[in-house]
Amino acid sequence: MEKSALQIARAAYQPKLPKALQGAVKIKEGQPTQSVGDQEEIKKLFPNTYGMPIVEFEPATEANTKKMNVGIILSGGQAPGGHNVITGLFDQIKKLNPENRLFGFILGPGGLVDHNYMELTKEIIDEYRNTGGFDMIGSGRTKLEKVDQFEKGLEIIRELDIKAIVIIGGDDSNTNACVLAEYYAAKQYGVQVIGCPKTIDGDLKNEQIETSFGFDTACKTYSELIGNIERDCNSARKYWHFIKVMGRSASHIALECALQTQPNICLISEEIEQKNMSLDDVVDYIANAVAVRAADGNNFGTVIIPEGVIEFIPAIKKLIAQLNDVLAMPEAKDLGRSEQIDFAKSHLTEENLAVFNSLPTSVARQLALDRDPHGNVQVSLIETEKLLSTMVAVKMEKMKKAGQYSGKFAAQHHFFGYEGRCAAPSNFDADYCYALGTSAAQLIANGKTGYMAIVKNTTAPAEQWIAGGVPITMMMNMERRNGEMKPVIRKALVELDGAPFKTFAAQRDDWAKNTAYIYPGPIQYWGPTEVCDQPTRTLALEQAK
Amino acid sequence: MEKSALQIARAAYQPKLPKALQGAVKIKEGQPTQSVGDQEEIKKLFPNTYGMPIVEFEPATEANTKKMNVGIILSGGQAPGGHNVITGLFDQIKKLNPENRLFGFILGPGGLVDHNYMELTKEIIDEYRNTGGFDMIGSGRTKLEKVDQFEKGLEIIRELDIKAIVIIGGDDSNTNACVLAEYYAAKQYGVQVIGCPKTIDGDLKNEQIETSFGFDTACKTYSELIGNIERDCNSARKYWHFIKVMGRSASHIALECALQTQPNICLISEEIEQKNMSLDDVVDYIANAVAVRAADGNNFGTVIIPEGVIEFIPAIKKLIAQLNDVLAMPEAKDLGRSEQIDFAKSHLTEENLAVFNSLPTSVARQLALDRDPHGNVQVSLIETEKLLSTMVAVKMEKMKKAGQYSGKFAAQHHFFGYEGRCAAPSNFDADYCYALGTSAAQLIANGKTGYMAIVKNTTAPAEQWIAGGVPITMMMNMERRNGEMKPVIRKALVELDGAPFKTFAAQRDDWAKNTAYIYPGPIQYWGPTEVCDQPTRTLALEQAK
Repeated sequence: MEKSALQIARAAYQPKLPKALQGAVKIKEGQPTQSVGDQEEIKKLFPNTYGMPIVEFEPATEANTKKMNVGIILSGGQAPGGHNVITGLFDQIKKLNPENRLFGFILGPGGLVDHNYMELTKEIIDEYRNTGGFDMIGSGRTKLEKVDQFEKGLEIIRELDIKAIVIIGGDDSNTNACVLAEYYAAKQYGVQVIGCPKTIDGDLKNEQIETSFGFDTACKTYSELIGNIERDCNSARKYWHFIKVMGRSASHIALECALQTQPNICLISEEIEQKNMSLDDVVDYIANAVAVRAADGNNFGTVIIPEGVIEFIPAIKKLIAQLNDVLAMPEAKDLGRSEQIDFAKSHLTEENLAVFNSLPTSVARQLALDRDPHGNVQVSLIETEKLLSTMVAVKMEKMKKAGQYSGKFAAQHHFFGYEGRCAAPSNFDADYCYALGTSAAQLIANGKTGYMAIVKNTTAPAEQWIAGGVPITMMMNMERRNGEMKPVIRKALVELDGAPFKTFAAQRDDWAKNTAYIYPGPIQYWGPTEVCDQPTRTLALEQAK
Repeated sequence: MEKSALQIARAAYQPKLPKALQGAVKIKEGQPTQSVGDQEEIKKLFPNTYGMPIVEFEPATEANTKKMNVGIILSGGQAPGGHNVITGLFDQIKKLNPENRLFGFILGPGGLVDHNYMELTKEIIDEYRNTGGFDMIGSGRTKLEKVDQFEKGLEIIRELDIKAIVIIGGDDSNTNACVLAEYYAAKQYGVQVIGCPKTIDGDLKNEQIETSFGFDTACKTYSELIGNIERDCNSARKYWHFIKVMGRSASHIALECALQTQPNICLISEEIEQKNMSLDDVVDYIANAVAVRAADGNNFGTVIIPEGVIEFIPAIKKLIAQLNDVLAMPEAKDLGRSEQIDFAKSHLTEENLAVFNSLPTSVARQLALDRDPHGNVQVSLIETEKLLSTMVAVKMEKMKKAGQYSGKFAAQHHFFGYEGRCAAPSNFDADYCYALGTSAAQLIANGKTGYMAIVKNTTAPAEQWIAGGVPITMMMNMERRNGEMKPVIRKALVELDGAPFKTFAAQRDDWAKNTAYIYPGPIQYWGPTEVCDQPTRTLALEQAK
């Protein structure tokens, strides 16, 4: 495997560990915990893993060196730092007992069910220290939720003499980790399951989890690019750049990038929903900023758009819901494409029809025709950045005719997602993930199951971080998913009364009118600590509260 | 102006200067020069600036400290390092004589004609050291080529007591710099004009100019992103990523990025033209690689596409030329959109009609309908990355039916241009540009005009770089532009017998079948020298010959 100079140099980086994880540990247990909602139901569903205490590691003189093999699974989308969770886990179990072995299940949870695995030896581990991507063992989206999967997994667990499985994933995968932990505990199989909080989207966080790993690196990578575009925008002074960033179910990435780069406009899906804005309202909001800047002679700007914004617009959400129902009707199945559109239109409520008719033709067609294998509208295929800029262009023409605007409007479009999910982890993510992996190893050695590894106090220097574990049930409530109530980890949306949003909201009018761009530049791994070791603005603002 | 931690820390970077530029210099003159082609015509057009020697700076004991004011112009697209040319120029003229003043013309060559300028003081200069973008004074695309522009410019030159104008631009802008130099020389106005080689495209280079500035930083930024995508691609193992990079008239960026990241496929426009490949040939080439990888179970890959590839396909080039002619016919003017397509089709040669009909409908429509203000087809609007992936998808279906392929094909698309043009310059570009600016100052102090500032031996440590100037006429030949023969700097295309292409060609079959990705990571400004101070692979390979 040929490597870049950075890959080679970066492999030598030794992630910083919290003091408490540097040697042997003992566990300090807190009070019994409760789930964040629906306590009775959750308790009933998780009789063996409910109510356990939060635990924290403290230095000790003796470690549990009893032999234990561990299995590791990467679940869902890539996030920078995943490999460092694995290397942290590997180093710690080997430190506890050199006989301990680590097995990686290939291409996600499916690897456990299909007995597709590889032993992760030192040679393999050393190839992946501080690297991005999940290519060491691959990831996958198979959901572990059925008894026959659990039983099939147990066969290989027994065969490899595995004491615990670590699942690195987002909210759904950690929910399933807990279901698996509960099942193995109920059956008294003696197999532990530990989760790890991963997602670049930043929507897996709460009182116990300060941030999910990967958010730091991904946002810094996107902010590098947004800053570069802002600088171009401010040099050429002739384009409005519409920049979509990943984040379907929450706008943390958009908000963090906005705090790092100070664009002229950033949409926050949660605010749009809360204010019950229509698509036209959103377009008007952007168009007004375009006009205000044009009046100052500035026919350029930058707009950050969270990927999921369309689904947060209440009127569109309603329209999509009805389209899903209407197009699922048996009479709709065998119609040709244009008849399908007519059929849909004739069955929409007056309100939804008006919204449908207000959309640009291409988007309306897409909503009515492109459906996923489950028959649902594929909202993710809509190029929101182009939809919005097209509608703004139309609006600017209208305003020009009405004498409310005299300027030029030309747009460029960008979408950043894959560009950042597999970036080499920042120092923060490299350290954070390595500590998470180390914590996971210690949770296992201390006999815990149904826990997520956590690291807190993360805006302090790594040495002072606090490591431990939190019962996954503590983060759960009941929510409706695909028509039935399920126990799930509550997703963290952008809080409109939280410090990050309020900091943004207090400045955005200034940013819209004036040009206040900040250019973060690329992630630096060496150099001054204020450049290399900063946490995200979101984390800093949340922890400062 | 609020700044990022990197902006603040990076401002303190002191660019490394070649030894010969560190103190006072004297000039070593070489032999008289000739233009690369059409010597007689060029000589006739440039009687005052033709045949001058190449010059090189050598350390001296005494400098020309006579007072001189200088004007600076940024021309054309942004490129990382432009600000450092200006800071290098500023520092050197101030060093020669603190009374010397630097004036920046605003928003490009138009600023000279319109007398739109600002004095660049130390306070302003210090804000922009080692930063990306052209926002210090802005850039523009006005072409300086008419006598009344030259005379209008002279007014402000006289008013500000300017001795010389430095024009930072690509091949066209430097050609025009020479035309201006010749005009002022012929008129004996005593105003010097010096050019500087800028373009991220890398197509302004020759025996004298090793590389144009900005190419290094832009390619490293794109390679960072391509590497990140490759890592994602290799982790998720389910998409083919079609990645278009800037470069309409040459494929240097695509080739450099390929050398840095080793994708499965990289198209090189110059090769496609030379081999007289059709669009179908290109699609077949990609489709075969998709099938070969699928046979190994690898339903993923990366394809790098130079922006201009469509225009290099001979059959498409012919079609576009005829479309431009046909649609310019008076009868075509007042037709509706669909009639225009019919009109075009009825006037195409049989050969061109066959090519037109082979294109996906949307692309054919775009070619026939979307025209620029001059009535020409807007090739740049074609989303080549989507066009190719759509055609590959169709081809894969055909191959599947023919039993030649059994796999899954799903594509993602990316276009990188604005993401890299204004990145903060790499150490290489920061040093190179600062040296170019310093050289420009010394060319002026030594009375030169019609020269381009150059820095050579750039794969050695900066200390050993060789600085000087080359007569712009030396790089010229006559070419047909918009119907008439003009003196122009010969554009450097990718040479198919050059070391960079040959190195790529020798390995690409391996890269196509196997997964040989390299992940360059983000540009580093601090850290190990092999990470921070590497030139591009193109430059290293070309200089190694």
